[in-house]
Amino acid sequence: MSPADALDNLSIELPSWAFGNSGTRFKVFSTPGTPRTVEEKIADAATVHRLTGLAPTVALHIPWDAVDDYPALGAYADDLGVRLGTINSNTFQDEDYRFGSLTHVEKKVRQKAVDHHLECVEVMNETGSRDLKIWLADGTNYPGQGDIRRRQDRLTESLAAIYEHIGANQRLVLEYKFFEPALYMTDVPDWGSAYAHVAALGERAVVCLDTGHHAPGTNIEFIVAQLLRLRKLGSFDFNSRFYADDDLIVGAADPFQLFRIMFEVIRGGGLDAGSGVALMLDQCHNVEAKIPGQIRSVLNVQEMTARAGLVDTEALTEAQESGDVLAANAVFMDAFYTDVRPRLARWRTDRDLPEDPMAAFARSGYQQQVDAERVGGPQSGWGA
Amino acid sequence: MSPADALDNLSIELPSWAFGNSGTRFKVFSTPGTPRTVEEKIADAATVHRLTGLAPTVALHIPWDAVDDYPALGAYADDLGVRLGTINSNTFQDEDYRFGSLTHVEKKVRQKAVDHHLECVEVMNETGSRDLKIWLADGTNYPGQGDIRRRQDRLTESLAAIYEHIGANQRLVLEYKFFEPALYMTDVPDWGSAYAHVAALGERAVVCLDTGHHAPGTNIEFIVAQLLRLRKLGSFDFNSRFYADDDLIVGAADPFQLFRIMFEVIRGGGLDAGSGVALMLDQCHNVEAKIPGQIRSVLNVQEMTARAGLVDTEALTEAQESGDVLAANAVFMDAFYTDVRPRLARWRTDRDLPEDPMAAFARSGYQQQVDAERVGGPQSGWGA
Amino acid sequence: MSPADALDNLSIELPSWAFGNSGTRFKVFSTPGTPRTVEEKIADAATVHRLTGLAPTVALHIPWDAVDDYPALGAYADDLGVRLGTINSNTFQDEDYRFGSLTHVEKKVRQKAVDHHLECVEVMNETGSRDLKIWLADGTNYPGQGDIRRRQDRLTESLAAIYEHIGANQRLVLEYKFFEPALYMTDVPDWGSAYAHVAALGERAVVCLDTGHHAPGTNIEFIVAQLLRLRKLGSFDFNSRFYADDDLIVGAADPFQLFRIMFEVIRGGGLDAGSGVALMLDQCHNVEAKIPGQIRSVLNVQEMTARAGLVDTEALTEAQESGDVLAANAVFMDAFYTDVRPRLARWRTDRDLPEDPMAAFARSGYQQQVDAERVGGPQSGWGA
Amino acid sequence: MSPADALDNLSIELPSWAFGNSGTRFKVFSTPGTPRTVEEKIADAATVHRLTGLAPTVALHIPWDAVDDYPALGAYADDLGVRLGTINSNTFQDEDYRFGSLTHVEKKVRQKAVDHHLECVEVMNETGSRDLKIWLADGTNYPGQGDIRRRQDRLTESLAAIYEHIGANQRLVLEYKFFEPALYMTDVPDWGSAYAHVAALGERAVVCLDTGHHAPGTNIEFIVAQLLRLRKLGSFDFNSRFYADDDLIVGAADPFQLFRIMFEVIRGGGLDAGSGVALMLDQCHNVEAKIPGQIRSVLNVQEMTARAGLVDTEALTEAQESGDVLAANAVFMDAFYTDVRPRLARWRTDRDLPEDPMAAFARSGYQQQVDAERVGGPQSGWGA
Repeated sequence: MSPADALDNLSIELPSWAFGNSGTRFKVFSTPGTPRTVEEKIADAATVHRLTGLAPTVALHIPWDAVDDYPALGAYADDLGVRLGTINSNTFQDEDYRFGSLTHVEKKVRQKAVDHHLECVEVMNETGSRDLKIWLADGTNYPGQGDIRRRQDRLTESLAAIYEHIGANQRLVLEYKFFEPALYMTDVPDWGSAYAHVAALGERAVVCLDTGHHAPGTNIEFIVAQLLRLRKLGSFDFNSRFYADDDLIVGAADPFQLFRIMFEVIRGGGLDAGSGVALMLDQCHNVEAKIPGQIRSVLNVQEMTARAGLVDTEALTEAQESGDVLAANAVFMDAFYTDVRPRLARWRTDRDLPEDPMAAFARSGYQQQVDAERVGGPQSGWGA
Repeated sequence: MSPADALDNLSIELPSWAFGNSGTRFKVFSTPGTPRTVEEKIADAATVHRLTGLAPTVALHIPWDAVDDYPALGAYADDLGVRLGTINSNTFQDEDYRFGSLTHVEKKVRQKAVDHHLECVEVMNETGSRDLKIWLADGTNYPGQGDIRRRQDRLTESLAAIYEHIGANQRLVLEYKFFEPALYMTDVPDWGSAYAHVAALGERAVVCLDTGHHAPGTNIEFIVAQLLRLRKLGSFDFNSRFYADDDLIVGAADPFQLFRIMFEVIRGGGLDAGSGVALMLDQCHNVEAKIPGQIRSVLNVQEMTARAGLVDTEALTEAQESGDVLAANAVFMDAFYTDVRPRLARWRTDRDLPEDPMAAFARSGYQQQVDAERVGGPQSGWGA
Repeated sequence: MSPADALDNLSIELPSWAFGNSGTRFKVFSTPGTPRTVEEKIADAATVHRLTGLAPTVALHIPWDAVDDYPALGAYADDLGVRLGTINSNTFQDEDYRFGSLTHVEKKVRQKAVDHHLECVEVMNETGSRDLKIWLADGTNYPGQGDIRRRQDRLTESLAAIYEHIGANQRLVLEYKFFEPALYMTDVPDWGSAYAHVAALGERAVVCLDTGHHAPGTNIEFIVAQLLRLRKLGSFDFNSRFYADDDLIVGAADPFQLFRIMFEVIRGGGLDAGSGVALMLDQCHNVEAKIPGQIRSVLNVQEMTARAGLVDTEALTEAQESGDVLAANAVFMDAFYTDVRPRLARWRTDRDLPEDPMAAFARSGYQQQVDAERVGGPQSGWGA
Repeated sequence: MSPADALDNLSIELPSWAFGNSGTRFKVFSTPGTPRTVEEKIADAATVHRLTGLAPTVALHIPWDAVDDYPALGAYADDLGVRLGTINSNTFQDEDYRFGSLTHVEKKVRQKAVDHHLECVEVMNETGSRDLKIWLADGTNYPGQGDIRRRQDRLTESLAAIYEHIGANQRLVLEYKFFEPALYMTDVPDWGSAYAHVAALGERAVVCLDTGHHAPGTNIEFIVAQLLRLRKLGSFDFNSRFYADDDLIVGAADPFQLFRIMFEVIRGGGLDAGSGVALMLDQCHNVEAKIPGQIRSVLNVQEMTARAGLVDTEALTEAQESGDVLAANAVFMDAFYTDVRPRLARWRTDRDLPEDPMAAFARSGYQQQVDAERVGGPQSGWGA
């Protein structure tokens, strides 16, 4: 794939919840202009897309974004130039899920959780979404608290019950996470577990790789390459981290890691047309402004994709095959060290996009407008 | 010190907030019977002490536990058989502290944070508390966000302003934390930083070691030994962890680590009369019952202290000095592997305490009583 | 399974190389009495078995333990009361393997590495060993150095070439490792990769879990439960760690973790007759005496197995199913906190084994004898 | 400081041992042309300096580089255009140090280790070196093996005995390390411990920060800022890591981290004339070519210093003080993302240095020459 194609095939889904308030267990700081409705979130997302040309779809979270009329919501989004994307379920906020959802010891609670996913599929049928993303918060906090093995067996059964309702053009996307909110054992803690489950389910079940959901030191680009090889990489949740699941702006903590990931995505065909690899953000703007936070994020992904696309793969292969470690590394680093920003500015102006989307947003007055308009009523957050 | 003395000198302070609701950024589950007032928290803490004989004091958090009449609160506690202990300040929930408190760029905000601590000293003067504990939540989320060096300089200045008001029989106790809520840089991230600050302040400034506030793999008992050597170990915040600052029940994740820590505490004189090392819990009972969670915790500390007290230090020294690694390790492990529970049951019955405090609590009907009584009004949590 | 059955089904394979010298990249300290030949290693291993009744087999490493006449070596072992066990290959010491073995870019080097494994199968045919264990040291040190994806493809091909020669009663056991000796990318870094490879190979290919080969914080007992569920847990390499692949005595760093692992082994049928789960040590006695180091190790596994066998699974299930977190944890911990050593002393005396194997070894004079006899000639180590 | 000054003040010391063979505990691969003598190492180091203008000094390791006539060695170096630099002691390879050196239980062994350092001071007196670097390998592998506290006390005493002999223009530089070769407890494991020791010793005792010697997730630039504030940052050992103390080429694993570190070095005055902060490499070229590995390393430091020097500190401060997180981060990242390589090529040609030192080395025929000349005799490595 040519670097230009890689850039042109790049599209990044924004999560509706990135525009709402978020924080840590210690405090959720609020900001003026925060959306109060899903429509306001979509309007913010559309603004990001209008300025960058990179973010044509918006992921919804059910029930946070539940509405009565999804076709109307879809039409609203269309009018703003974006489409509704992945549907994300919620297995972590109902009081019944204190001890698990799809893995719960009680059949009644598992059924409730399965039913919630079937409702999500209903939503997908109305929104035309392809992907049902399941990030399973289930787990335990203390050794002995749960039966690790039986929980896996129940998960298998619950996932199968959901998968049955996944349509021919839909996919079940199973996300894994190292820890949190569970603090001792998480029921889908690693890519191996997610892979084993989706392989058992069938072709329309794939894995979601959240870049923040790994143990310290994990080589994430290896997992990208491995899942692409196994044809089970369904999507990314992009963000970055220094410590745990920090949900910082993608590329902010380790841009070189993002470069390596995008290199493997391209190398494994993940940006080819029809690859089925969806790129999505999943971040929390705890202290920074949210809309520019999302603009910065999609630009970071674009920049590292552009750099990854510059790797001279012929020279790389030659150095690799001759065992010249430093030459191979140099080819790789040369691409990373190249400043692609002028090139991307041109890419934008060629497409009637603002040369500098961050500056364009600041100039646009959009923030001031929503600060003034969005007054009264509870701001969106993870709780609503 | 004899093992019996170690046990008799053991007292563990309970944090009032352990009895309120807590959780993760994803969800705070609530439970019936959760206290709504500081008095109800103290009543729960007193129950733990009544059943274990181990927890004679209760730490308060300002403003969560602020009242108009501290002498009256002290009298209330006395009536229940406990005393008010450490005063904990709060630098993480005021909207003004979004970008820091004692380190904030604006003098006005720093002064506000300093003043908050002076109010805490006022509370201490009324409650007779010895320790002002400062866990500083300040930090930044992104590289470049703050000036690391200037923040240290401002911290130095703010701490000095507080220290000036610390009474002759009071102490400033500075806690360090690896990360969270800040996700890139924390202003007091490690024991070295806390030590450098308290050493600069003076004799009545000491360090608080929270067992959950370290990088993966950190040898905590080494830090215990080092701080005791440097005469700057002021207190512990006990809890346990598998991943980040999980705030699980102390001893639950790695009882052998707790044993090693208590061994160094005893070895370094931390349980000697007048040692000045305060032992406190700092935990979150996210999914388990709170009062029995605290009972379990103090029993865990007692059990590991008892085991640590059993180490045959003479045999240990001999093995160490002869370079017999396996013999030294065996002496150490022999103490850890010894079941001290029958001995501790006798220790309790000798003191007219219930032989099995967990069972005694279950039998007592206390939980049922508070479940029935504590109805209506907002339950206590970290937000109030 | 009854606790007694669990104990009676327990047998632990010793690695021949544990009796040789080992160390870090900084220094390998030597000790008197270190074996110079595979026969001397087997004699040491047989001593461990004679004193503990727990270690009836010895794993060999090729080429370190290569001999001309394997039947004679087997007979020698039989005479000493032990049998030859797993055959371990070596992909990390030939100068040709500097940039990989089974994954090497050059067909010639890959073939050499495949051929080495076929020779190992020949050895197995002569020794009657069931398992060919492949710990693959392949990987890269720098980003860009190797083509991650092509290396996986070449690995797939090489493993298939080896698997073809695995006999009907033999198994290919693939070990994974987080890092070291490769310092950026390891070709089989996690259980998911090992699982994907062995699942593709067939029924006689299984995974080896080395307890020291995981990222910080990894929940190993979860992987044990998962691999048992997937019927792909072939064997363990037991050791313990505080930091990296420290290869310390199993149970020395975190006995509670070993307890949790053994609980999942029992719970998933791993100690049932014919389970196919092989327990092996893989340790380095860098500073401690080697033979007693191995005795201590097998006793540690036995003690934690005995404690795990004491878990009242009925009470545990009841507490788990009623959502009583603290009760479930208490059932679990009660078993861990029980001192099983008197019981195990009886288990030994009932079988005409010494009550205290460590003391019996010290008394036996064996060490003094080998110190005196094994003089001259190079001591065994990793290099020979 | 202007960016140009920062560059002009930059000089990086090369470790003689980087030119010898190194590896992991599994294997040390050798390469043609590897030096056999300290003179050959110095010749290689001089080659790096000749091509880059960045590496005017060479650190020696005693006893690996011990010679009879240091003035002659110094003259030899001078002739090649470099000077002898830091003297590094060795506390990890003598059989007597199996259980420690400066902390050993036996006075005799401690004295031997102290004496070794006094000999190093003698060497310094002859070479004119300023710094005695002590990386202390002491520690223990098992809980109970050593008395943590007494070892600290003995260390204090040993360091004081060495410090007494440190001349008026010399410095004792104490390095800390998280783990390895000790696998449970290291006697100087963190900057806090190193700081406490050097603060107690006096003004001419400072800390060495090796970038690979930290726990996962540690914010190293914070420590840089803190030690500069405390006036105790003596030197750096540069290298990079993904996992443990990988000793990879500095900047190879996380160039953004190196940028952040160099930013704090500049910001804290570490590149000011007379700052006393020495920059040194400490790396192992296990699989890559050694001389170009060192060239690549000093260029990486130079590139990241150049980028760090580009930070618009006025704009940064303004953004920081206005609480504009994204603007502050953008100012910071703008410098990091700028391609400084053309500018540095000019910096070199302005100084009659080759525009591309890596290419110049390849063209020079130096490697071919030493491959041909250095035949016979044992190659240098860590063992000699």
